[in-house]
Amino acid sequence: MGGVALLIFLATIVASSHAEEIPQQIHHLRLYTGAAGSKIAGLSCLSWRFAVETDNLRDWSLVPEECEAYVGHYMLGKQYRKDCDAVAYAAIEYAENFTLAGDGLDIWVFDIDETTLSNMPYYARPEVAFGAKPYNNTAFNAWVAEGKAPVIPGSLMLYNKLLSLGFKIVFLSGTRETYREVRISNLKKVGYHAWEKLILKPDNDSSTAVVYKSSRRAELEAAGYRIIGNMGDQWSDLLGTNVGNRTFKVPDPMYYIG
Amino acid sequence: MGGVALLIFLATIVASSHAEEIPQQIHHLRLYTGAAGSKIAGLSCLSWRFAVETDNLRDWSLVPEECEAYVGHYMLGKQYRKDCDAVAYAAIEYAENFTLAGDGLDIWVFDIDETTLSNMPYYARPEVAFGAKPYNNTAFNAWVAEGKAPVIPGSLMLYNKLLSLGFKIVFLSGTRETYREVRISNLKKVGYHAWEKLILKPDNDSSTAVVYKSSRRAELEAAGYRIIGNMGDQWSDLLGTNVGNRTFKVPDPMYYIG
Repeated sequence: MGGVALLIFLATIVASSHAEEIPQQIHHLRLYTGAAGSKIAGLSCLSWRFAVETDNLRDWSLVPEECEAYVGHYMLGKQYRKDCDAVAYAAIEYAENFTLAGDGLDIWVFDIDETTLSNMPYYARPEVAFGAKPYNNTAFNAWVAEGKAPVIPGSLMLYNKLLSLGFKIVFLSGTRETYREVRISNLKKVGYHAWEKLILKPDNDSSTAVVYKSSRRAELEAAGYRIIGNMGDQWSDLLGTNVGNRTFKVPDPMYYIG
Repeated sequence: MGGVALLIFLATIVASSHAEEIPQQIHHLRLYTGAAGSKIAGLSCLSWRFAVETDNLRDWSLVPEECEAYVGHYMLGKQYRKDCDAVAYAAIEYAENFTLAGDGLDIWVFDIDETTLSNMPYYARPEVAFGAKPYNNTAFNAWVAEGKAPVIPGSLMLYNKLLSLGFKIVFLSGTRETYREVRISNLKKVGYHAWEKLILKPDNDSSTAVVYKSSRRAELEAAGYRIIGNMGDQWSDLLGTNVGNRTFKVPDPMYYIG
């Protein structure tokens, strides 16, 4: 295979360079684009996604137009599911090796959108274009109200494992209270059948996600709960205060919530 | 192009499903592998890298054997450089829009290894195999002592921009004090010609990276400096206390420092 060939090739170079006392620099790193001013020209959509997922790019409002097809392919193809599964496996390994107190106060906090439920059917609409078109709050809420969001399978697998290990589940979402009943119905329909708390955002709460979620997690800890794990698709789910003993970031290249 | 074709295809599906009142679920998300127990079988190296770069996988000691070639290709190919450049551009955009106080106390903290200098020539050696072979402290230190680490071009571009904007530079590295002179020589040789402080780890300091770096950043802030930006390849550079106003994570799929 190619990889082995590459390594044999490298091994040859390195061996030769040792023998001939040539400096061991394999190749010169260099800037991929020379133009520091042109951030979009030559943009690699893979690099854009790397920068988004690692929280290097913040407060962005739209998927770059030239990355719409890339993000669409990623979300609808195998890689998104694989990436979700990889995070679920990492979380399961952590949870299986965690010793619970057994008093029912060890909790796992899950965000909902793009973490336990997927809005992909909505985001795949032409007028949404995987986040490359401006966010339409009315249309998105109408989609939420349908209660038809499919499950994210890796997260459901993790959820079932957590329940079997004795964790209590808390859903902590920026969804408005208005949608409580339809969200409950949607969660149950796809397999999330039990939870300790389902915390939604009051309709008149205008705080940012990181402030809102931090304050709710602080209340959970004040009530005696211990946040052993905390999973979300946005860094605003995982930063702030009272973030929990371990955080897990699932992919989301479609939108940013600060 | 393929992407456009995909979107037209999707548009057609969505339009049809609207018309026929078929539920809008484009496709069922599903687990990529069915076997929850087999974390390695079917491992996607792209997903492994995603999980590593987003801090979902922690305390790992080796690149999975089956990802050695993948990581090698990534590091030696264009994508690693593009990803580094994307982070540099994000940091430059942030720095250009930050209003400095003008008192010389606005600093930018850089890690060194895999952040401003690259150890790729070392990691490409067959016995290192891009991190797939066990870490050899003696051999790595011998490489550091050669002072031949090449520059990471995106970081040098950022460094020069920061200097021109009036930022002071602080290098904060886990490199031992023993190597101070050779590190200075290496930094200067590749273009980093000036800095406010170069903080290295005392030879007898056995604290973890996150504790060591947090305490040094706390000292910087106690001395009146304001950490406006903080860039590293490890999350231990960017987590803990006194992390700075913004953090930037450059890629490193070759090793983990906690």
